[in-house]
Amino acid sequence: MRIAVDAMGGDQAPAAIIEGVSLAQKESPNVELLLVGKKQVILDYISNDLKVSIIDAKEEISMSEPPAVSVRKKKESSINVGINLLKNGKAEAFISAGNTGAVVCAATLFLGLIPGVERPGILILFPTLKGFSLLIDAGANIDPKPMHLLQYGIMAKVYAEFILKKKNPSIGLLNIGEEETKGPEFLKEVHRLFLDTDLNYIGNLEAKQIFSGEVDIIVCDGFVGNIALKVSESAAMAVADFLKRHIMNSFSARLGAMLLRPAFYSLRKEIDYSEYGGAPLLGVNGVIIICHGSSSSKAIKNAIKVAINSYQQNINREIKLALEQEVKLR
Amino acid sequence: MRIAVDAMGGDQAPAAIIEGVSLAQKESPNVELLLVGKKQVILDYISNDLKVSIIDAKEEISMSEPPAVSVRKKKESSINVGINLLKNGKAEAFISAGNTGAVVCAATLFLGLIPGVERPGILILFPTLKGFSLLIDAGANIDPKPMHLLQYGIMAKVYAEFILKKKNPSIGLLNIGEEETKGPEFLKEVHRLFLDTDLNYIGNLEAKQIFSGEVDIIVCDGFVGNIALKVSESAAMAVADFLKRHIMNSFSARLGAMLLRPAFYSLRKEIDYSEYGGAPLLGVNGVIIICHGSSSSKAIKNAIKVAINSYQQNINREIKLALEQEVKLR
Repeated sequence: MRIAVDAMGGDQAPAAIIEGVSLAQKESPNVELLLVGKKQVILDYISNDLKVSIIDAKEEISMSEPPAVSVRKKKESSINVGINLLKNGKAEAFISAGNTGAVVCAATLFLGLIPGVERPGILILFPTLKGFSLLIDAGANIDPKPMHLLQYGIMAKVYAEFILKKKNPSIGLLNIGEEETKGPEFLKEVHRLFLDTDLNYIGNLEAKQIFSGEVDIIVCDGFVGNIALKVSESAAMAVADFLKRHIMNSFSARLGAMLLRPAFYSLRKEIDYSEYGGAPLLGVNGVIIICHGSSSSKAIKNAIKVAINSYQQNINREIKLALEQEVKLR
Repeated sequence: MRIAVDAMGGDQAPAAIIEGVSLAQKESPNVELLLVGKKQVILDYISNDLKVSIIDAKEEISMSEPPAVSVRKKKESSINVGINLLKNGKAEAFISAGNTGAVVCAATLFLGLIPGVERPGILILFPTLKGFSLLIDAGANIDPKPMHLLQYGIMAKVYAEFILKKKNPSIGLLNIGEEETKGPEFLKEVHRLFLDTDLNYIGNLEAKQIFSGEVDIIVCDGFVGNIALKVSESAAMAVADFLKRHIMNSFSARLGAMLLRPAFYSLRKEIDYSEYGGAPLLGVNGVIIICHGSSSSKAIKNAIKVAINSYQQNINREIKLALEQEVKLR
């Protein structure tokens, strides 16, 4: 198996990316790793014991560039070049911590979609009080149709079953109230679509239910999913900052904080993005893993693990079958 | 000034509501308080030293009923009766911790809107690391047009200036990225509308910026605002639960928690909804304050304070003037 990694994407690129690739190589020595990016820059960072191929890509797409335009114009960007490796059968997976919109756009454009999928969706692991839930879509599709959300539910179910080994996972719809009458017309339509399947659909979910971990899969549109993800990360960080500020002002609190350090450490570990690696972009014809812009080397290493797993389980074939099955049932 | 309070609305009604009214009476003895609800039920809870009028309302709208239908059908509900007191000049403000959608619907229907306002919006105080920001809309209008969000910005600005005494407050738009190219078409249109005013508009805001408190007013649609509010409440609570669980498992952590108790206490106080009272429903022709369903007596007391303040500052007149001014500038 060959995995292409975008060496130029992310706030800490290329150093953290290359370090992550090096960590992955130690864990999975049989996987062939390809670094995609500006060759001269990569060579400056690479150590002698790292056995990787470098695929030169003369351009870069920055985090703030408009995705569709930059993918069309920058044909030599690391994102375009990397995803075309999959298209041309020269790699089995691509990983990037760069411009998410550009990755989504290039993957859709060059690889196409799995039959039955109308839009790809980003699946993330969302930390809860009971471990993790899956959330889809975290930002690939900010203006979806109701049917896209149904397809997200089905793709996430397949992922939960084949990758996380969870049987008949429960699916809920993120809304502003549990009752059927709550929320915009759009979500009422999605609700009706889910009721009409034999999925383990439990209905609308309120925000507080997503943290209790009572549902395996949270479905929402990409805009709301991205807001929910970032608000929860930021709220947890704000709570920590707030406590830290108070702790600094008092001796007894400082002592208390010292004694609580293991608890804070576990908390950080639990909500730390880098622990779970990247988020699969589900629905495209190929294994694409999207990483947080601030990805550390550990995050990159874990994203590579997610890619290996997705490829070995042939997740895209399972998604195709599940969607065919769903159409037959109608 | 006469303030009508919905005695039947909220998870702890009528006990917490009546207790809150009693606390408010001690703080503001010159304000006349009217309890609206089932007379027999209210009489069971009322103490002798409470000087209130009881306005009988034979029906109740529960939290889960569809707003528009219930307002139309239950003409004798505490929400309908209470808001009609304002319409008929028998009270100057109405406070409810009941079905939010029903309050929004009844207020719009019976009181009408301030000239220049197309939809009312719920304004909340959002706790940040620097105190509070204002967020509008927290859930009154889940399917808004771009122009509604501009009107929300203007109304919140007036509130910040006249009630919170903040000069030239900054306004930001909650989005999934800071860049102009980010987000759905809808928000790009809102962005253009704001740029075309002389408001202190600073552009798109990411979730992490709302917690840093760098902006005075956060504008968003009611669905996203409600999700952001509930996700942040739930995330903060999840962090606290997580720490509590770890603390219970270790003696040193328990000791640490004891020493940190003042810090946790301040945190709770800072994010405790009841500390700031209710959220004004801006844009309707009258002073309407919406409280959290789980409002305690303290929350009700503080909501009454917000109502007094809004009425005394004649906030609706100022909103009308600001919107006229805005139209002139175009």
